[in-house]
Amino acid sequence: MSLFEKHSDLIHRAITALHERTFFAAFTEQPSTAVYGETADADGQQKFKAALCKKFEELKQAGPQAWAGQEESPYLQDALKISYPIFPTQTLIDRSKTAFHSWRKVSAEERAGILVESLERIKSRFFEIAYATMHTTGQGYMMAFQASGPHAADRALEAIAAGYEELQRFPAKALWDKPMGKFNIQLNKEWRAVPKGISVVIGCSTFPTWNSVTGIYGSLVTGNAVLVKPHPGAILPIAIFVAEIQHVLAANNLDPNICQLAVDTFDHMITKELAEHPDVKLIDFTGNSAFGSYLEALHGKTVFTEKTGVNSVILDSVEDVDKVAANLAFALTLYSGQMCTAPQNFYIPEGGIQTPTGVVSFDQFAQKFSDNITALVDNPKAGAFVMGAVQNKKTCDRVTEAEKLPGKVWLVSRSIENPMFKNARMASPVVVEVEAAKLEIFSKELFGPIALLIKTKNTDQSIALAQQMAIQHGAISCGAYTTNSVVKEKIADEMALAATPVSFNLVGGIYMNQNAAFSDFHVTGGNPSGNASFTNPEYVTKRFTWVGHREPVAAVKQ
Amino acid sequence: MSLFEKHSDLIHRAITALHERTFFAAFTEQPSTAVYGETADADGQQKFKAALCKKFEELKQAGPQAWAGQEESPYLQDALKISYPIFPTQTLIDRSKTAFHSWRKVSAEERAGILVESLERIKSRFFEIAYATMHTTGQGYMMAFQASGPHAADRALEAIAAGYEELQRFPAKALWDKPMGKFNIQLNKEWRAVPKGISVVIGCSTFPTWNSVTGIYGSLVTGNAVLVKPHPGAILPIAIFVAEIQHVLAANNLDPNICQLAVDTFDHMITKELAEHPDVKLIDFTGNSAFGSYLEALHGKTVFTEKTGVNSVILDSVEDVDKVAANLAFALTLYSGQMCTAPQNFYIPEGGIQTPTGVVSFDQFAQKFSDNITALVDNPKAGAFVMGAVQNKKTCDRVTEAEKLPGKVWLVSRSIENPMFKNARMASPVVVEVEAAKLEIFSKELFGPIALLIKTKNTDQSIALAQQMAIQHGAISCGAYTTNSVVKEKIADEMALAATPVSFNLVGGIYMNQNAAFSDFHVTGGNPSGNASFTNPEYVTKRFTWVGHREPVAAVKQ
Repeated sequence: MSLFEKHSDLIHRAITALHERTFFAAFTEQPSTAVYGETADADGQQKFKAALCKKFEELKQAGPQAWAGQEESPYLQDALKISYPIFPTQTLIDRSKTAFHSWRKVSAEERAGILVESLERIKSRFFEIAYATMHTTGQGYMMAFQASGPHAADRALEAIAAGYEELQRFPAKALWDKPMGKFNIQLNKEWRAVPKGISVVIGCSTFPTWNSVTGIYGSLVTGNAVLVKPHPGAILPIAIFVAEIQHVLAANNLDPNICQLAVDTFDHMITKELAEHPDVKLIDFTGNSAFGSYLEALHGKTVFTEKTGVNSVILDSVEDVDKVAANLAFALTLYSGQMCTAPQNFYIPEGGIQTPTGVVSFDQFAQKFSDNITALVDNPKAGAFVMGAVQNKKTCDRVTEAEKLPGKVWLVSRSIENPMFKNARMASPVVVEVEAAKLEIFSKELFGPIALLIKTKNTDQSIALAQQMAIQHGAISCGAYTTNSVVKEKIADEMALAATPVSFNLVGGIYMNQNAAFSDFHVTGGNPSGNASFTNPEYVTKRFTWVGHREPVAAVKQ
Repeated sequence: MSLFEKHSDLIHRAITALHERTFFAAFTEQPSTAVYGETADADGQQKFKAALCKKFEELKQAGPQAWAGQEESPYLQDALKISYPIFPTQTLIDRSKTAFHSWRKVSAEERAGILVESLERIKSRFFEIAYATMHTTGQGYMMAFQASGPHAADRALEAIAAGYEELQRFPAKALWDKPMGKFNIQLNKEWRAVPKGISVVIGCSTFPTWNSVTGIYGSLVTGNAVLVKPHPGAILPIAIFVAEIQHVLAANNLDPNICQLAVDTFDHMITKELAEHPDVKLIDFTGNSAFGSYLEALHGKTVFTEKTGVNSVILDSVEDVDKVAANLAFALTLYSGQMCTAPQNFYIPEGGIQTPTGVVSFDQFAQKFSDNITALVDNPKAGAFVMGAVQNKKTCDRVTEAEKLPGKVWLVSRSIENPMFKNARMASPVVVEVEAAKLEIFSKELFGPIALLIKTKNTDQSIALAQQMAIQHGAISCGAYTTNSVVKEKIADEMALAATPVSFNLVGGIYMNQNAAFSDFHVTGGNPSGNASFTNPEYVTKRFTWVGHREPVAAVKQ
């Protein structure tokens, strides 16, 4: 049985799910012993520990020029001392070019089968990847498991399914039979989905697998060779993915260089060398806006970016203000605000928020929100685990700076102690009140656990500001609370024009930060927060070109 | 019955045709009296003549600043003296913005119905459009009828169908029902296809409707407001399209400014003003590479270009060399080489072309090719009608220059007399031999009836040069003649990598210049000849953004 036959049912279920957009998951998001085995967690942790202070020798990339690695654990504030093979950029490109010409001739079916098989293998390493993710990104255990493991694998499967579907969108062959009166002109036609060439996927430090696998699998399924350029601070999680892809390629007598890991170090970053190389045709990037915009402007490249955004919450009227404050406190605190979907700007009318039991004033809501954060942060069973650790020291500096903003500081950031990791780099959320007129303060992303409570004239101004932020500076998510259907449609329409998805009236265990594979398009591509979307048809169709050839059958007399 | 119901069957047949890619045409390409009526041709000619020396008053765009028009007939070498309403750029933009917000709220069904209805109305004006096209572009009567009438309408229908299909690709609503163990999280989700805003479609002087209607209809069906900026030398054909679109819009109580004609004059071109205006989000362009590349580099715009290319013919081996020479002579002579798909570089091995009756030498083929051109040009029943007239005087200059190229001139260009139009600007093809080493001569588009016969070492060099031209300078078409299946696959593969469609072994009444709606992707978007393709999914999906909103149903206990 071929790998395509083995996985065909799953691929087709995934394609159906893409179009139904109801709940679908191929990988179990809970770290369940029933699914993953009694010892899976302990084994994964053990494997992660065994990898420390060693060369990562799983890759099938021969003859490295050097070995290097500079990852540090935000939990330990200490180096992991794992080293990875380093190659000259031209070597990576040359191997990729060679591998491209074998991979592009592999059928779409076979490519899809191989890629799903790699996900099956990666599934057995979800726990190891979880610990690798914790100790590079600072994510809490549960997020690290889910985001880097099952959720990333579902996103990868989504890209495989979308790519495979688009490759089948037009026939491989057709007879074009045109009546001309006394005779027909008949042409045999064929269409080839021609991959673009070498694809470079540039990772980020906070979501090293979730944000990269869609580009990797999207490029691979459409026949491109891929160079995975991880962030120097978060290599191990995606290195395990690449190693497993290479394992399946080699097991199927294919060149493992079809997907290479291109590690660099902070003192010699190779991202620009790769991106500007004339043989590189596709670039996927997650990271800061300046670098993303530089990539988007490169001539002759197809570029997919997820940059930064200014995410808004519009508070108009609510059913239960306490549930709302709790939900938003969690959304802000989760992974210490280091999600690209985390809320930042909270627009609250100066006249307060309508509730069934009367108006909750701006100050009352600010207090409730701050109290909920404090309760969550100080909860010994939840706080440290929800917050995780801070990946980058600069985020802590930004939090400190935020406390100096001109406006009432409702909550100061504290360095909470994580009972399991005494040295963890921690920063609880800071909450600052800002006047709506002080646009310069909130017209930019303040990455980290920073909430700005913006006092607006009314909900119309809140909507206008949220829309303006999204159009001018980008937005990846938006939260809105209203019990008024007219206001709701106004928010839905105005934010749609700003290409920003809105989560309405979320309470309980679901948050505006979360985007589910097969249902939520992550980033829309329609505002400055990024030019691409996981995984819409454009995300995969831009990775190849339809080329049609034709030849006469013969002029047939009628 | 709504217009969507009226045209629903046609729209769905068109969607099916898009995917089957067999022959499909909704509009009859022959100027048949049975289809169009006994007096349609005479009536159309009469209407065209009646439009001369007058204001074009059909548009529903109020209060023009001035009236102007500078069209000249290449057949008469005289001004048409038709004047069109001129508006300040900001007025066009302001009206477009207002119109956008009404049009975007019209359902996809209703939009598609209105647009197909406009094509039905335009059908009754095909002959008038044909004469308008002849006397602006210089096309021969048959091409003018077909390209600007039925073929353009089919291309427009194709864009409507593709857009309508993509708008249905994801559900408007879905229930997302995620099992969480003891309970489910249920979200009501909805997805909106949000149009990008104002779309500017920039026309060219040689195919004023065929090259513009896909962008116009593609943008309109996806909910954008459109500004049609015709070439100042070829306005009337597309003005009739816009007038009919406006007529149907008004008849359905919609703002006719949803699709405006934005005429300018050679002394005050408004293309850059429009393209750079911040409210303009979409740009479609057909024309020269320099301006196309400028547009592609504009920040924050989605740009679709068809620029120039260097189209190759690879001659390796043939069944019947006379049929091949005749076919290529026609392909070059048709509309005096003024098609973006016309052949220019003919690669012939120095050892000659293999045939079943022996080798035909380079010189023998050059002579046969030249003789076929002369016979066609001098044929009183065909020559002048196939050639049409030359749109731009500069093309005649280019032909004259070509005769001075360093290489044997196999055929000089002559100014043939058109029996119906004594003053027609005419130039028959020039054929020049060029050494393969003289890359600088043939590494650019020489727009017009110019053939370069390039003597190569062998077919491998021919393929390599054709590929190199396409990758470096773009190519929209390629002709290839080989009876060897290995050579054929090599050409198919190498040219596919250069994103260039190949027409193999065409003889008889079908030419490499021709691209059929619903089957041939026109321009692939994968080489420098253009970044877009008529009409692949990307051509329409880039005109809108998917935005998903969501809201909890309620937490339901299992």
